[in-house]
Amino acid sequence: MIKAAVIGGSGYTGGELARILSRHPGISLEAMTSRQNSGRPIAEVMPFLRGFTDLEFVEQLPENGDYDLVFLATPHTASMRLVPQLMDRGIKVVDLSADYRLKDPKEYEEWYGHQHADAANLERAVYGLPELFRDHIRGADLVANPGCYPTCTILSLAPLLRGGLVEGKVIVDAKSGTSGAGQEPTRSTHHPNCAVSITPYKVGDHRHTPEIKEVLDGLTGKDIDVIFTPHLLPIVRGMLTTSYATLADGVAQEDIAMAYRSAYDEERFVHLASVPAIPATVGSNFCEVGFKVVGTTVVAMAALDNLVKGAAGQAVQNANILFKMDEATGLDFPGLGV
Amino acid sequence: MIKAAVIGGSGYTGGELARILSRHPGISLEAMTSRQNSGRPIAEVMPFLRGFTDLEFVEQLPENGDYDLVFLATPHTASMRLVPQLMDRGIKVVDLSADYRLKDPKEYEEWYGHQHADAANLERAVYGLPELFRDHIRGADLVANPGCYPTCTILSLAPLLRGGLVEGKVIVDAKSGTSGAGQEPTRSTHHPNCAVSITPYKVGDHRHTPEIKEVLDGLTGKDIDVIFTPHLLPIVRGMLTTSYATLADGVAQEDIAMAYRSAYDEERFVHLASVPAIPATVGSNFCEVGFKVVGTTVVAMAALDNLVKGAAGQAVQNANILFKMDEATGLDFPGLGV
Amino acid sequence: MIKAAVIGGSGYTGGELARILSRHPGISLEAMTSRQNSGRPIAEVMPFLRGFTDLEFVEQLPENGDYDLVFLATPHTASMRLVPQLMDRGIKVVDLSADYRLKDPKEYEEWYGHQHADAANLERAVYGLPELFRDHIRGADLVANPGCYPTCTILSLAPLLRGGLVEGKVIVDAKSGTSGAGQEPTRSTHHPNCAVSITPYKVGDHRHTPEIKEVLDGLTGKDIDVIFTPHLLPIVRGMLTTSYATLADGVAQEDIAMAYRSAYDEERFVHLASVPAIPATVGSNFCEVGFKVVGTTVVAMAALDNLVKGAAGQAVQNANILFKMDEATGLDFPGLGV
Amino acid sequence: MIKAAVIGGSGYTGGELARILSRHPGISLEAMTSRQNSGRPIAEVMPFLRGFTDLEFVEQLPENGDYDLVFLATPHTASMRLVPQLMDRGIKVVDLSADYRLKDPKEYEEWYGHQHADAANLERAVYGLPELFRDHIRGADLVANPGCYPTCTILSLAPLLRGGLVEGKVIVDAKSGTSGAGQEPTRSTHHPNCAVSITPYKVGDHRHTPEIKEVLDGLTGKDIDVIFTPHLLPIVRGMLTTSYATLADGVAQEDIAMAYRSAYDEERFVHLASVPAIPATVGSNFCEVGFKVVGTTVVAMAALDNLVKGAAGQAVQNANILFKMDEATGLDFPGLGV
Repeated sequence: MIKAAVIGGSGYTGGELARILSRHPGISLEAMTSRQNSGRPIAEVMPFLRGFTDLEFVEQLPENGDYDLVFLATPHTASMRLVPQLMDRGIKVVDLSADYRLKDPKEYEEWYGHQHADAANLERAVYGLPELFRDHIRGADLVANPGCYPTCTILSLAPLLRGGLVEGKVIVDAKSGTSGAGQEPTRSTHHPNCAVSITPYKVGDHRHTPEIKEVLDGLTGKDIDVIFTPHLLPIVRGMLTTSYATLADGVAQEDIAMAYRSAYDEERFVHLASVPAIPATVGSNFCEVGFKVVGTTVVAMAALDNLVKGAAGQAVQNANILFKMDEATGLDFPGLGV
Repeated sequence: MIKAAVIGGSGYTGGELARILSRHPGISLEAMTSRQNSGRPIAEVMPFLRGFTDLEFVEQLPENGDYDLVFLATPHTASMRLVPQLMDRGIKVVDLSADYRLKDPKEYEEWYGHQHADAANLERAVYGLPELFRDHIRGADLVANPGCYPTCTILSLAPLLRGGLVEGKVIVDAKSGTSGAGQEPTRSTHHPNCAVSITPYKVGDHRHTPEIKEVLDGLTGKDIDVIFTPHLLPIVRGMLTTSYATLADGVAQEDIAMAYRSAYDEERFVHLASVPAIPATVGSNFCEVGFKVVGTTVVAMAALDNLVKGAAGQAVQNANILFKMDEATGLDFPGLGV
Repeated sequence: MIKAAVIGGSGYTGGELARILSRHPGISLEAMTSRQNSGRPIAEVMPFLRGFTDLEFVEQLPENGDYDLVFLATPHTASMRLVPQLMDRGIKVVDLSADYRLKDPKEYEEWYGHQHADAANLERAVYGLPELFRDHIRGADLVANPGCYPTCTILSLAPLLRGGLVEGKVIVDAKSGTSGAGQEPTRSTHHPNCAVSITPYKVGDHRHTPEIKEVLDGLTGKDIDVIFTPHLLPIVRGMLTTSYATLADGVAQEDIAMAYRSAYDEERFVHLASVPAIPATVGSNFCEVGFKVVGTTVVAMAALDNLVKGAAGQAVQNANILFKMDEATGLDFPGLGV
Repeated sequence: MIKAAVIGGSGYTGGELARILSRHPGISLEAMTSRQNSGRPIAEVMPFLRGFTDLEFVEQLPENGDYDLVFLATPHTASMRLVPQLMDRGIKVVDLSADYRLKDPKEYEEWYGHQHADAANLERAVYGLPELFRDHIRGADLVANPGCYPTCTILSLAPLLRGGLVEGKVIVDAKSGTSGAGQEPTRSTHHPNCAVSITPYKVGDHRHTPEIKEVLDGLTGKDIDVIFTPHLLPIVRGMLTTSYATLADGVAQEDIAMAYRSAYDEERFVHLASVPAIPATVGSNFCEVGFKVVGTTVVAMAALDNLVKGAAGQAVQNANILFKMDEATGLDFPGLGV
């Protein structure tokens, strides 16, 4: 049994990690930290976990705690202060923050406004999108768990870009449920402000933009122009991305279809669908991917649960790979459907 | 033209007052105060008012301002500090806070935790539910505008209680949209917390309970046991109350029907409906009232827009009465329906 | 491994049964019938089941099919035509329709407008609310799976009524998500009609009324007056009931608290909560129950997922009991929480 | 007073026309037809209109009816059978169907699957987007009222295309509330199917595509490649379009800003906003338009109420122009805001 801890566990991602790990046959959750909830039973703060855990939140992990694996559900900049000491203790880390996602520390500084404090581990970190980088993850000690938008976007676009089937800029029109904004009440997630609307935000400025771009650049060896427009959607769980790219010369619809099939036919957590549907994925680690060729444009779509495949579920998927378990261990359950 | 001002205008109620007054042919909005938005154009803070007002929020009303009427959209305890000086200046006041709703200052102290500071005006204040107290409002200088829940509840129950058609306790199961909670973000109105749920709150403790009871007691001359359970509903505008009372001996369904018809057939803003529907009332000053007799129990239902008939619209209706205008002036527009 | 089939599986309840059984270690789903989807892969009709079942819908069960257990997700009147032949083949049946819920065939006829065609089995049927009738279910061959509203209502009221802690009539104000209306589009579930509203329906006339009454009568030996008002709520999954009863003479709040604790402290699927919350139960078989004493009235509340504890999950819980498995087998996963 | 009738008035658009006309000082609604509701009071079918109209639905307009103006809220193909006879009677027509929107009858046949039956009037019809074609509308007898998506899209893109500020293809990612789907219940508007999702539909195939393209082609004199992806959004009223185009060489952000300002500073019903917000427009005829330049891409956004500026409100705006009234007559009220 792999012994795991979660640092920064009082948010939605922490709750979701605890929910998934509570039924995981190979990883046991041994500790979860929270400054604000320290000393309170997890199941009191998160009533859906009653009967599934007797743990209390702790202020911080005991120094002599014997963990094989730590999930960091901490804010960016906090993670890069914690990673070096965890790595020194020989603990494998899946970091759900943005701290190790961008390979270029200059990019990090530009988008996050902080100098990167752990360049050494940044180099060792692997971007944890198993469908693309499974082989690298397998041998890693530190996984940068992707953002929700990048996961959804990249899964829908990778087959196109990897194969050189499209060229020119990529437009990503993304829509996310409100749980993606975290559990702190804000003006934008105040129900009267968001419940009968859909609101574009941080147009062209969202921090997931360089993350998407870096991966797409890596897949193509080119400098891809990524236009990324997120929208806040009046649902709680779930996300849809609708992306647009231009077909390369001579590429036919059948080439596109084949690229998607060959990319995902063997993938446990990606399903091809003519129109991806959020409800099929809610509560599960599945991502639905679909496409439509319209003239010389391909419209690539994907749907997933932002808290599962977009966060905690993918983190567990990465942990499974790190510890040579079947990738679907503890994640092999369907979405709610309705 | 009646010159009006709104004090405390930056919340939903203030916006709604400005929305209604912007089209009112007999009342002109001359000033609106807001501490936090002082100096900003109203239409910048409330973009739906662009083209309808050039006013800027002011910190406070000019001392020499020439107003006939002030709407107080201030929190409780603030109103009772403002009312005496406004009354002294000969200004009529419609107070949308709770400060003048409870006739008994002891009740006020018990439910609001503050001693009442303006007992003199409390006695002069009239409870502004026109369908019941029109005649008193007509001669008043100070109107205590009812709460949203009491308006909805009392309109549905008054025909039963007034006529002695029911007896014993009254159970009110109320459901309100989230705009009723005001515009400050809170944990309970955080979209992920409320959007896929309906949540009972302050069960038996809500401050609208004594307000409902005081009116029902007044209608019957009895001491009515009112059980009031509000629920937060995942819609923005609109409210429904479902109330339960026991038929008095010998009362038949037809007596009930007649009581409702005679109460409301001539009322401009109350419509009888077999099942009251929130959408028919949204954006308007209308209240839909209906009932069903089930055995010896009568189920009384009402629906309205909590920001209009439940707040700003009723305030304007009261103002119309105070100034001897047709009661529907500036309010004579239908709900959205869908 | 228990071999199971579902008859009438193309609706939400069928999908939910398939979702739960796909992870059940002791029951295998061998066949699912659907007239309209016959011949189509289940996972094509219900995409959330891709990867979890290779079955196709069949028109009807093969006559020589070797099943230990059949779940009937058929409409009322259909079930009572199927049960006799299944029972004759020695197959245990969990019927999710209303056909075997009312012990008195006269009541059935009155509320459902059809004569009961299988009085013999009606007598043998056991009402499948495990928290109340576990011992009877254990020895049964035919379980009448309760309706969603009765499950929620009765779980919240049983501790009060069983102990004689309340007296007089019981008022049930119930609110259900739209999935309870089934998957056929109707005027009332048309999004523009229901999404910004809460609508009372079948006030005093809903067919779950006699089901609630029959159980409450049985618990008390009295003739309880049940007033039941369902409302359609603009959420998809989940249900809340708020019920009102009058304390019996001399009953104190602490008696009430003790009754709830002694009823549910040992129950795997009932959690006591000060305010029951739908999100904690969504996707799971849990029911949250709470209460508040207000003067001489007790407000009893319960929340659950209408498709799980209110339908398919409880059906599986009953099946587990029928076949002497641990009651939580295949159901031991938490709700989504958010 | 202009005498008007509505043909095909029982849908959402008809209700909205009646709602607006009920307060219009210059147009009186004299008759409204509906096959299915013939003989029923309008205010019974549409309860939000109680107190605002005493009309009953009629099967069809009386042949000798004296109307100045007819609004056709009929399905496509029905309009083109009605228009010739109405025009012959000297009645001006605002057609809310698609029948006269596409100038090229071949395009009509291709997208709507029917030959156009009234080529003569098709030539005389004017596309009723006042902000672009006010001068043509003024002298017309037949106005083709634009679709909701085209109105929203074109208002956001026209300043860019008209001025040659962008080049190449135009991508339109559109999101509409469910009222746009009409009042007939369907699988896609069934609440459980759409309420916790956002669903792309008719990707590349939607009939509003050629309508957008024809206008954009006309503005530029070019053959614009329009990629149009509509999504069904879980709100009732309101629409947002997010469109993407590439800046032409040498165009600076300030050029873009100036183009929008010069297009709309004098327009009563278009407001520039940094981020367009649906709630500001709900219930009103206003459209909010905004843009953001991201590298060489301009993201053009617009929000409106699909039933008002996207349908009935714009139809009334067109009627005001036809009859030389102030364009805002009867439409000069703000949106709900919240």
